[in-house]
Amino acid sequence: MWRLYQFPLCPFSRKVRLLLSEKGVGYELWRENPWDASDEFWKLNAAGRTPVIEHPEKNIVIADSRAICEYFEETVDRAPMINGTAIGRAEIRRLVALFDENLFAEVTGPLLYERMLKRIVHRQSPDSRILREAMKAAHGHLDYIDWLVDTRPWLAGATMSLADLAAAAQISVIDYLGGIDWSGHDSARGWYAVFKSRPSFRPLLSERMEVIQPPSHYAKVDA
Amino acid sequence: MWRLYQFPLCPFSRKVRLLLSEKGVGYELWRENPWDASDEFWKLNAAGRTPVIEHPEKNIVIADSRAICEYFEETVDRAPMINGTAIGRAEIRRLVALFDENLFAEVTGPLLYERMLKRIVHRQSPDSRILREAMKAAHGHLDYIDWLVDTRPWLAGATMSLADLAAAAQISVIDYLGGIDWSGHDSARGWYAVFKSRPSFRPLLSERMEVIQPPSHYAKVDA
Repeated sequence: MWRLYQFPLCPFSRKVRLLLSEKGVGYELWRENPWDASDEFWKLNAAGRTPVIEHPEKNIVIADSRAICEYFEETVDRAPMINGTAIGRAEIRRLVALFDENLFAEVTGPLLYERMLKRIVHRQSPDSRILREAMKAAHGHLDYIDWLVDTRPWLAGATMSLADLAAAAQISVIDYLGGIDWSGHDSARGWYAVFKSRPSFRPLLSERMEVIQPPSHYAKVDA
Repeated sequence: MWRLYQFPLCPFSRKVRLLLSEKGVGYELWRENPWDASDEFWKLNAAGRTPVIEHPEKNIVIADSRAICEYFEETVDRAPMINGTAIGRAEIRRLVALFDENLFAEVTGPLLYERMLKRIVHRQSPDSRILREAMKAAHGHLDYIDWLVDTRPWLAGATMSLADLAAAAQISVIDYLGGIDWSGHDSARGWYAVFKSRPSFRPLLSERMEVIQPPSHYAKVDA
């Protein structure tokens, strides 16, 4: 059985969970807090970050969310998520990088620091200036998602892909932390509502991080 | 003809240049400074970052260094760089992420900011505390490369791979900026010396960034 080392608000773990569920791969969740990672966890992953996936019986360990996704894409045929021509696959990977790197650096990461780490680890209040900047940056990313949704059936093209999973994973964490304002983003909102109703997404939406509670609309499919 | 939008000290552009040279793909270099990227460049890449590769005649644009590398791996058979079993490929991608993300965030990025951006854009002096921390982090990464080189022929396994190119690209920029101290890292130093003598590496080593000069040993193959 696969074991996924993760924590509830890690957007990269969420991306992997969505992929595994869409592909029908069973796994156990193992909690690992990045702010006090165990020595055992550092031995599994020199980068010291979630997610890491392990198959103890097969002696397999894979670290890094994109390496994990590419591995399951190569080994499980069901629900292909990096599919199509070489150009189409490049477009999927470009968008995954945009969401994993830019959206995370500008929005998800600062919100996680201000609203989760400061509360749990540093016992400090969030910096309202940083929160405002992150929410402004979120609007820019939602504008871009609006544009993608208005020009294509799914974010990277004709079919659902890892680009959709990567964006939805980041947005779900941002939304949990109160950073999403959908006003003026009807297209992106419609795309995300479709996602929220998928069976792969329901376990994420029902999970709670101790101490930190999401806004009331967070898990509602029609909100 | 392919056009690579890049700047001389961008480690991600260097990784792509090494891959293209190893694979024998011809390309032109187009200079794009990330601190004053043109509107045309933002149109090519919503992430606003180098590298981007374009083939105007074929109407192809690919942004993000890993998406570019995967594209050429899929379309050019020569010199495979993400090769082997699914597990082996996962190990290559894990290491690429470790060098692209951790080594960049802890060493290359801070050095580029302190020694390049502060000088060219902000007209400030580097912060010696940040430089010291970056060089300390560099030793940690060189320790890890020592360990990889001591246990495998190449960083990810039996053959040269994108993991070697990603590490060498970061290290070449760190070395240019005076951040590499090889003392105590004979294994990593030996691995890097082999790289420096490869034809794919020579063009990188002969290039200079205006204003900023590398240390005297930088381009020497035996240093």
